[in-house]
Amino acid sequence: MRATWKVNFTETVVFGNGAINELPDLCDKFNAKNIVIVTDRGIKDAGILQKVVDTFDESYQTFVYDRAVPEPPVDSAVECLEEAKNYMDVDLIVGLGGGSSIDLAKVVALLLRYGGEPADYFGEHKVPGPVAPLIAIPTTAGTGSEVTSVTVLTDVKNKMKTGISANELRPKVALLDPELTLKLPAYVTACSGIDALSHALEAYTAKDAHYIDTDDELLFQGGNPISDALALQAIKYIFEGLVLAVNQGSNIEARSKMLMGSLLAGQAFSNAGTAAAHALAYPLGGIVKSPHGELTGLLLPHVLKYNQPVIKEKLATVERFICPESGVLSEEEAGCRFIERVEQLLEEIQLPSSLSQIGVMEEDLPEVAEKALTIDRLVRNTPRVPTKESFENLLLSAL
Amino acid sequence: MRATWKVNFTETVVFGNGAINELPDLCDKFNAKNIVIVTDRGIKDAGILQKVVDTFDESYQTFVYDRAVPEPPVDSAVECLEEAKNYMDVDLIVGLGGGSSIDLAKVVALLLRYGGEPADYFGEHKVPGPVAPLIAIPTTAGTGSEVTSVTVLTDVKNKMKTGISANELRPKVALLDPELTLKLPAYVTACSGIDALSHALEAYTAKDAHYIDTDDELLFQGGNPISDALALQAIKYIFEGLVLAVNQGSNIEARSKMLMGSLLAGQAFSNAGTAAAHALAYPLGGIVKSPHGELTGLLLPHVLKYNQPVIKEKLATVERFICPESGVLSEEEAGCRFIERVEQLLEEIQLPSSLSQIGVMEEDLPEVAEKALTIDRLVRNTPRVPTKESFENLLLSAL
Repeated sequence: MRATWKVNFTETVVFGNGAINELPDLCDKFNAKNIVIVTDRGIKDAGILQKVVDTFDESYQTFVYDRAVPEPPVDSAVECLEEAKNYMDVDLIVGLGGGSSIDLAKVVALLLRYGGEPADYFGEHKVPGPVAPLIAIPTTAGTGSEVTSVTVLTDVKNKMKTGISANELRPKVALLDPELTLKLPAYVTACSGIDALSHALEAYTAKDAHYIDTDDELLFQGGNPISDALALQAIKYIFEGLVLAVNQGSNIEARSKMLMGSLLAGQAFSNAGTAAAHALAYPLGGIVKSPHGELTGLLLPHVLKYNQPVIKEKLATVERFICPESGVLSEEEAGCRFIERVEQLLEEIQLPSSLSQIGVMEEDLPEVAEKALTIDRLVRNTPRVPTKESFENLLLSAL
Repeated sequence: MRATWKVNFTETVVFGNGAINELPDLCDKFNAKNIVIVTDRGIKDAGILQKVVDTFDESYQTFVYDRAVPEPPVDSAVECLEEAKNYMDVDLIVGLGGGSSIDLAKVVALLLRYGGEPADYFGEHKVPGPVAPLIAIPTTAGTGSEVTSVTVLTDVKNKMKTGISANELRPKVALLDPELTLKLPAYVTACSGIDALSHALEAYTAKDAHYIDTDDELLFQGGNPISDALALQAIKYIFEGLVLAVNQGSNIEARSKMLMGSLLAGQAFSNAGTAAAHALAYPLGGIVKSPHGELTGLLLPHVLKYNQPVIKEKLATVERFICPESGVLSEEEAGCRFIERVEQLLEEIQLPSSLSQIGVMEEDLPEVAEKALTIDRLVRNTPRVPTKESFENLLLSAL
């Protein structure tokens, strides 16, 4: 049993409609006048970049790098920084967009402070200290990247997905403006929203930090009372907001709940970690082209059923928190009711509910199970010990 | 209606039995080798100071200032820093003790970075930027000072209570070790514990940040989804832990719940703020010698009853969160049940439940009501608009 646990937070969270107008003041707190904005073409074309640039008066200099792509190649970070430095001295980095832009901005902030190239920092805990000031502005409600300590990158040279994970990469400021998410298409809203739910639920049901059996310093260290509090509230917001956000994109109240849910889920999972649904989604992502959220969402009810024998109290608590009337149900009944609620949600936002629907074949399953079991940080967080056989059965139930 | 709200966090929280052993590693993250420990005689006499000093090997230099007193006179901070600087270069400040030691440590960290004297910074938002690295180690479960941005001081020259409030004063690291609280006497446990409950409940029921009517940047800015999530969990822990912690001082599980509750309450109220119970407790503290917690605790059920018409949903949510069986009660009934629960708690921990018991007289009440109404930051947080008459009636009900 581990005696202690640790949580890390983004120092400042600013939330609300029109919150981007506070960006210059937030930069002032770092005495920053020369700002690099890392974003992507979609954000530029949607007019969001311009809105953000327009918040700065002529006393600031901005340099925009708008070529972030999903799982950004490591060279993008080097390229962005070189171009920016040719243009001005750089004080502060803004990441504006989905997870990819924010992830890339984290790496730019790292290289700005410590030099070298991204490969020098691949893995966990290799960042020497605080990185350059970084403000994250998410435009989707899903990844939670604005408050997390991880980046996902593509190592072009070795043709593989890689990443840098370190508490120092956590943005100093998360600036969340629901208005920026109003135009997200329904399908993107659904996939990113269900991903946020997966973050929250996997963090909430993760093995308790005390019972993670290792002496190492862990980035994902299991559940604790703070991650529980945040995850629970995240789940409530997502259930209140997701169906409406998908079906009425311009419903600002629903968008606000989703952005809030995704933020809280990010705070929770970036400390507690995620577990089996994510472990299984990664190898599945190598077989089919479905977005990450579609995969974790599809797996979620099956993972909850798999873990159910050891998370009965948690499932009942979340069900009763969402629906006070379920206070009359037994723990067992309330847990089952909650899992049905997740299945129903998937249906209402029209995401696929079986692996066969998205092209996964039965013969793929053994390899997926095997690969998933190698992802230590997620497997050890899973409350019920997984084996190759149990993962295969789980996948079979989802087929 | 305000469009945005902001929350600020202590970056790192470390929690658990034996957590103080991580202190040197935490200092290393700041490259700090010369450490000032600010504490008080009680902590020294209880052997807690020695435990903390013993965590450092000979590669560190420590300087101990053990003369912190409640509502520390501003000169203490100057004195502490001068003595420490005569002894060594100072890299980092540790505040070890109840609220007073930690509050004093905040001021020392401020003066170390910016010089001058405490009076230069009295009030809100007068701290120019980040202060020197500060690690807070609470030895009581009550104030939450380890994660808050406020200090209470005594301005000796002008013979008055004063303070410095600024986000920059929030400790960078909160290190919480329940074992340090095992020997707290029952009465101190009760008063500080009920104070933590007051923080949590006043933060949870504070007026929503959107409806606080001002354009100023506020330290206490009203309720928001993050403070709600933290406060709700805090209330649960306190109800689970307080009676046991008071009656079985050596029950480490109960102590742990109380330290956790107090931490979560601190995170919540240092952003959302407290309200009427605190506004009324301050002037009462000028009349009777009761500890702050005894006063806020005594007032709590009366304040909840006063606010009840406008916080029905919140009261029902907290009741149902603590006791799932209350899911069958109506909103109104669940709220009433919760207020009874607070009254019962006060009784079980043997704190006074009426103002007359502690020596307050009916003729004192008008002045208390009047003075309470002048504390803007707490009055504007109160969900039901207070007037002199309503505050007097509230006090009369508590007499």
